[in-house]
Amino acid sequence: VPHRVHNFNAGPSTLPVSVLERIQSELLDFAGLGASVIEVSHRSQEFMRLVEETREQVRRLMNVPASHAILFCHGGGHMQFSAVPLNLLGLKPARKALYVDTGNFALRAIEDASRQGYIRTIASGRNTDYDRIPELEPGDLDPDASYLHLTTNNTAMGTRWNAWPDAGAIPLVGDMTSDILSRRVEVSRFGVIYASAQKNVGIAGVSVVIVRKDLMGHALPGTPSLLDYRQLHEDGSLTNTVPTFTLYVMKLLLEWLDDQGGLEAMEQANARKAKLLYDVLDRGAYYRAFAHRAHRSDMNITFTLPDAARLERFLAQAHENGLYALKGHSFRGGVRASIYNAMPEAGVRALAEFMTEFERRNG
Amino acid sequence: VPHRVHNFNAGPSTLPVSVLERIQSELLDFAGLGASVIEVSHRSQEFMRLVEETREQVRRLMNVPASHAILFCHGGGHMQFSAVPLNLLGLKPARKALYVDTGNFALRAIEDASRQGYIRTIASGRNTDYDRIPELEPGDLDPDASYLHLTTNNTAMGTRWNAWPDAGAIPLVGDMTSDILSRRVEVSRFGVIYASAQKNVGIAGVSVVIVRKDLMGHALPGTPSLLDYRQLHEDGSLTNTVPTFTLYVMKLLLEWLDDQGGLEAMEQANARKAKLLYDVLDRGAYYRAFAHRAHRSDMNITFTLPDAARLERFLAQAHENGLYALKGHSFRGGVRASIYNAMPEAGVRALAEFMTEFERRNG
Repeated sequence: VPHRVHNFNAGPSTLPVSVLERIQSELLDFAGLGASVIEVSHRSQEFMRLVEETREQVRRLMNVPASHAILFCHGGGHMQFSAVPLNLLGLKPARKALYVDTGNFALRAIEDASRQGYIRTIASGRNTDYDRIPELEPGDLDPDASYLHLTTNNTAMGTRWNAWPDAGAIPLVGDMTSDILSRRVEVSRFGVIYASAQKNVGIAGVSVVIVRKDLMGHALPGTPSLLDYRQLHEDGSLTNTVPTFTLYVMKLLLEWLDDQGGLEAMEQANARKAKLLYDVLDRGAYYRAFAHRAHRSDMNITFTLPDAARLERFLAQAHENGLYALKGHSFRGGVRASIYNAMPEAGVRALAEFMTEFERRNG
Repeated sequence: VPHRVHNFNAGPSTLPVSVLERIQSELLDFAGLGASVIEVSHRSQEFMRLVEETREQVRRLMNVPASHAILFCHGGGHMQFSAVPLNLLGLKPARKALYVDTGNFALRAIEDASRQGYIRTIASGRNTDYDRIPELEPGDLDPDASYLHLTTNNTAMGTRWNAWPDAGAIPLVGDMTSDILSRRVEVSRFGVIYASAQKNVGIAGVSVVIVRKDLMGHALPGTPSLLDYRQLHEDGSLTNTVPTFTLYVMKLLLEWLDDQGGLEAMEQANARKAKLLYDVLDRGAYYRAFAHRAHRSDMNITFTLPDAARLERFLAQAHENGLYALKGHSFRGGVRASIYNAMPEAGVRALAEFMTEFERRNG
């Protein structure tokens, strides 16, 4: 057994050892074909079946209604920062959309969308240093807007939306890159859900895009064919060569998630894991949680220490103790523990114990 | 040792067993980090070094001059069908470009580019059923064009360009998806070279883009940030999470290519392998090569049999004999043997012998 650290990286992120071992064991021969999964055609029967099964697993685990299509798209969540406005702005003549600024990635989504049309930020967490999800004013929900964009979990900030705003007839778009398949979501509330795979559903290089079918077919002129939702849907996401290995790992992850008891069990396990860390943060004044209690993420636990010297010592000693990649995002600073689906409870316990011990010795 | 077929798929395609075994052996621990290469941060020192080394290997192996930048971009060659016009059409006020239609993928490049500006097909192989590269008329080289696009090797057709046209001051753009790093190229002749990785440099999910630096910075409004060459260049291709595993496999492939003696040795080996098959085709009238002799590809050898029944029998019996994925592209039909860098000579010999034997028994 090779040496393994507890990997708290925000994405790419840790995978179950059983999945890594499965990849390893069948790397030279996929489905008895006598060739590796990374060598076979994306249009072979065997691989097309894998794509179909992966789609069906997403549909079943997330309870995606028949009104919504499931696409796989190149480029991760960031590519969707452009794909969403390219596909949806054309839904209404004003070509405008509403965004909520909840931190780093929401800002990048706004920046990219602004290249495609008129983007209005209707609420921002900037005034409270992004420690919470800002309140929306009903009057801001401009009915001429083509959609309202939310970042459902804010990886860099450690905050999350707990209830979806009622936007009436305006389709809701959710960037679920850091919490897809980590908690139950009523998919029918959304016009589009998108997520890159490298946090909760596998590895880097692809995004899952769930689109209400009646929103397709309005792509702006100049939309690249590989970002056109209707085109991808018509082609079963195989418009060109898909990132085959990435989809294969996604399928293994979804099978593993099923084995853990599905989404409800996963949601409960994630809440339990997060509580282990929040309990340490709340026990005293030594560690300071960044996120307001009512808006805390179960995926990314962000906090800081009394001063920069102890923060640096904390990160260095954690690393020496096999607690890897705890440094916060540069936008936020401090410490960030990313504990997605595949982070075992043992890893979280090890971190909680280290935090307690560090406080005792550096209080 | 697992059962292995000879895999003639056009892409994704066969990999050296030594590379597969290396991936397998270090899958649970990358660079001694105690985490898999598919789990670590794309911004970790270790991974950023891998990206830098991969870029340097491409530069050295292809002898890329300092005038050109090397980018890694999401989405394979097909994404570049849009990225090229988005980045280059703005070089001149007319926003037009010239394309040469050499078959299936050239046509798809033309189709996608036509969404972005005025695209003129200045020569087409259609009249000769794409059996050769058409001649260009010097008068067609409109000096107002922003670039001239070629598909240097035509995967579906089995043809290739052997000499580049002199386009004067018009930058040449080469889709080298199916022959990059299979033969020597004078990179300075090109404004842009692009290639997806899954044929000669690894697996699906990324493209290599080599861009003359002075052509950057003219992206059309609305260009998605992840397709903007200047942005990617400024960010060292790490604008967002790169497909980490795909880059890792590319690096192993480039190391392997180096071990084989570099590009000149590879070019010679590829010519030797292709000759083994063309010699069988040329020996009699039983098999008919699709490509004109002067335009034959060393990567994709395309041919057909005397009738449909024998073609079907050929493909079925080849499959039974461990010769995998020989069916031609639907655009072309017949047989296609894709013999990229990683196809060992033994695989090509096995196919040549099978062809000889099949002809003897089904003549």
